[in-house]
Amino acid sequence: MNGAESLLRQSIAAGIEVCFANPGTTEMPLVKALDDVPGIRAVLCLFEGVCTGAADGYGRMAEKPAMTLLHLGPGFANGIAYLHDARRARSPVVNVIGDHATWHLAADAPLTSDIVSLAKPVSAWLRSSRSAEEISGDIADAIAAASTRPGQIATLVVPHDYMLEPANGIVAPRAVPSPPPVSGEAISRASALLPGDQPSALFLGGEALRERGLRAAARIAAVSGCRLLCETFPKRWERGAGLPAIERLPYFPEQAMALLAPYRSIVLAGARSPVSFFGYPGLPSYFISTEQQTATLATPDEDIPAALEALADALGAPADAGEFAPASRPPRPTGRFTPESFAAAIAATQPEGAIIMDEGNTSSGAYCPMTAGAPRHSYLTQPGGAIGLGLPCATGAAVACPDRPVITIQADGSAMYTLQSLWTQARERLNVTTIICNNRGYRILGIELARSGVKELGPQARHLTGFADQPLDWVKLADGMGVPAVRVETADALADELERALSEAGPHLIDAII
Amino acid sequence: MNGAESLLRQSIAAGIEVCFANPGTTEMPLVKALDDVPGIRAVLCLFEGVCTGAADGYGRMAEKPAMTLLHLGPGFANGIAYLHDARRARSPVVNVIGDHATWHLAADAPLTSDIVSLAKPVSAWLRSSRSAEEISGDIADAIAAASTRPGQIATLVVPHDYMLEPANGIVAPRAVPSPPPVSGEAISRASALLPGDQPSALFLGGEALRERGLRAAARIAAVSGCRLLCETFPKRWERGAGLPAIERLPYFPEQAMALLAPYRSIVLAGARSPVSFFGYPGLPSYFISTEQQTATLATPDEDIPAALEALADALGAPADAGEFAPASRPPRPTGRFTPESFAAAIAATQPEGAIIMDEGNTSSGAYCPMTAGAPRHSYLTQPGGAIGLGLPCATGAAVACPDRPVITIQADGSAMYTLQSLWTQARERLNVTTIICNNRGYRILGIELARSGVKELGPQARHLTGFADQPLDWVKLADGMGVPAVRVETADALADELERALSEAGPHLIDAII
Repeated sequence: MNGAESLLRQSIAAGIEVCFANPGTTEMPLVKALDDVPGIRAVLCLFEGVCTGAADGYGRMAEKPAMTLLHLGPGFANGIAYLHDARRARSPVVNVIGDHATWHLAADAPLTSDIVSLAKPVSAWLRSSRSAEEISGDIADAIAAASTRPGQIATLVVPHDYMLEPANGIVAPRAVPSPPPVSGEAISRASALLPGDQPSALFLGGEALRERGLRAAARIAAVSGCRLLCETFPKRWERGAGLPAIERLPYFPEQAMALLAPYRSIVLAGARSPVSFFGYPGLPSYFISTEQQTATLATPDEDIPAALEALADALGAPADAGEFAPASRPPRPTGRFTPESFAAAIAATQPEGAIIMDEGNTSSGAYCPMTAGAPRHSYLTQPGGAIGLGLPCATGAAVACPDRPVITIQADGSAMYTLQSLWTQARERLNVTTIICNNRGYRILGIELARSGVKELGPQARHLTGFADQPLDWVKLADGMGVPAVRVETADALADELERALSEAGPHLIDAII
Repeated sequence: MNGAESLLRQSIAAGIEVCFANPGTTEMPLVKALDDVPGIRAVLCLFEGVCTGAADGYGRMAEKPAMTLLHLGPGFANGIAYLHDARRARSPVVNVIGDHATWHLAADAPLTSDIVSLAKPVSAWLRSSRSAEEISGDIADAIAAASTRPGQIATLVVPHDYMLEPANGIVAPRAVPSPPPVSGEAISRASALLPGDQPSALFLGGEALRERGLRAAARIAAVSGCRLLCETFPKRWERGAGLPAIERLPYFPEQAMALLAPYRSIVLAGARSPVSFFGYPGLPSYFISTEQQTATLATPDEDIPAALEALADALGAPADAGEFAPASRPPRPTGRFTPESFAAAIAATQPEGAIIMDEGNTSSGAYCPMTAGAPRHSYLTQPGGAIGLGLPCATGAAVACPDRPVITIQADGSAMYTLQSLWTQARERLNVTTIICNNRGYRILGIELARSGVKELGPQARHLTGFADQPLDWVKLADGMGVPAVRVETADALADELERALSEAGPHLIDAII
């Protein structure tokens, strides 16, 4: 067994099933080993950002890491933006980067670069293998680090010569540490802030938004009367009829602060104290004022569902109380697109068990309020803000959950970053339907310019924030990569085409001219 | 004047004319300033890798830097791969990255990241502005650093609040240091190795491959009998009838070493001692053996043309001697594609003054030997090896040289990395014709696997190195971005369509099914 084979055997032993890959010459021993050591499904992506974004989506849905296989520093660099998003999402990801043979590094060949400096900002765990024998232990450590709940990015750099040299075999899989339990003190502090006689809120994030956390939160609300809120960009939010309905914090500071202002006390569970996405002159970084009392029940890395249950018990909450959303969805909309009719077309159509990847940006604001009572679904967003995550993240989610339909609500400007994802969806016959929110520009930037006091855009600002003068034809782009596509201009057409797409296996794209 | 306006005024004073931009919220003050301070042409790219690759191509052809405008760490990260290529090419590039407002950094907002760690590996000069007043001096220093011949990457991080705060005005443009002259000792050492009575070679790279360097090299060859060779991946090689013909070093070690082996002494001018692109077991990193004598006439950062002229004078070479290529081009080919007929279709058709961007990888090997006598052209390649540079680099070259036709010979796998470039070519009406070498896979990886002893690819290796099972339709992809496209399956059709594309303004794409 050589080093490459030991890496794969060890990964299989630790439960790795999928590798999102864009390999180059230095990774060829691993590519060969994928055939010699069966057990890992290799998924080719035609750009590394698709690999890393897919690993994020896979990790969120599978609750365990996929591997990425990336080529040297420049190949890894192409994946950094979506590792940034995965880091903010606390998704489990194991990156394997092939490096030059150790004896070749001194020659400073064209593709040589400082991989460690590039990988550090996005890696909670980072190592370069120092011999063929050590690779199995290294990847075992990487997988354990990545698997540490809720999830981390682990990056292993493996030199080409060590992949080829003989290795001893595999080691015992590493134990994955459990998330630290929450202290009694944290529970006391939190329960002191939820007395039931003044307006209070429970601000939820991370693992609190899964079913177990939501049910515990609903018990807390039932006994304390606190409002249930959640972070603006959840990693994975379980939603729909039968689950507690909670409200998402708005994006812009003015609205976020207005929503939070009535609450004299706010308990954080799995979420950091909410901050502004960007710093605006005259507005604060933090949305919770110093006059409001806050307590952290559980940080994003702690055992959040257990902490919520302990708090509910401490407050004497009933075992199964709570405001559960009744089944309800909007009527099927008709006519020209409005923000509401666009969202309603999806809300009226999405089937039970859908995975919704929402990178609709300025176009999908009406979706969440409309779908609290929709059939059960998982709702994924972009906690890290690096745009273009939608298509790859949906791709990875579909690989993780082949039996669940994935619907991607995708802003057009962002979609262009990673349109190569469509090809992987086509080749792997993934059940993903992409809805392009085609507004022919980066609408958010026009809003930001207006916020900063620009009344009318000059020609260069128009040129840099919109592209209506040179529109993109998403039907042709999708078709060129093997994804059947249609264009729609009305809400009823969107609902019809979405229904049709969901009734057929494989990927589809709907170009919604909004 | 605010900080953003001072940045642009200073840049205009220093000669910056073009900004390849993909801005976000933190760059909005600069976007607004582009209208308030006219003088810089903003070119929108729909992915940051297009911005940086275009800046590389622009820098090579304009011989001065363009600016890139990139959004925070993740936006910059998307541009790193082609900054890696630009660094290896020693192209002049000035990156401007908007950062969060300084007072907002502590909040660790979603898009916050360690920009310095990401930028360091690709930046010869790197600074974060520390006040609005200092921005003009900072960008002046950045432009001077980038403009230092042959060219460097300079990266300036500008916090959002400093862009908005009042600035004093601009400073005097910085003097750009001249490349250090070559010592008399280096010239003596080189001339001692070119005695004329044993096989010797002059190995050229970087600025040696421009007309002045080539003419001096030809004088040296005329008097010493040395062979003229050049590096495998030149930054910009001036070629064609009337210029000295020189031979390019092959890619694979066996062939490269075989070409170099006969020469007892080798003088390096503007090139490092050639090394293998990858380290192969049993083969050396360096192609020149320790038995061969070498001397460095000029490093890539020194004044190479002056050094070559000084060496020619020292050797007593005639003022204007040399082996100039006679005008010649292959006959127009017909029939199915072969490596030769594919190259001949281009060689027989390319017009005077063409800029050829060659990222044909395994498909364009026959091109150079066929075009030594073609009409004068500039030949650009990928010194850094990060694939996907072709389309953006050609885009930037076309912006720099609007009166010269650009022809991109583009491998299909690599093209997918940066296909968004086609949209910028369409919107800016650039005279670029892209020829896709459509072999439906990463052919090089199949070759590399065969080199490593794999006789037959297993299913996973086939899956990761080819995509014939899910072909890309480049005609649709191009059309979807506004670039007229055709498919060709014969060499004569390629020549016909290339001629037609070159006769019309604006971009075209030819999907060559080879």
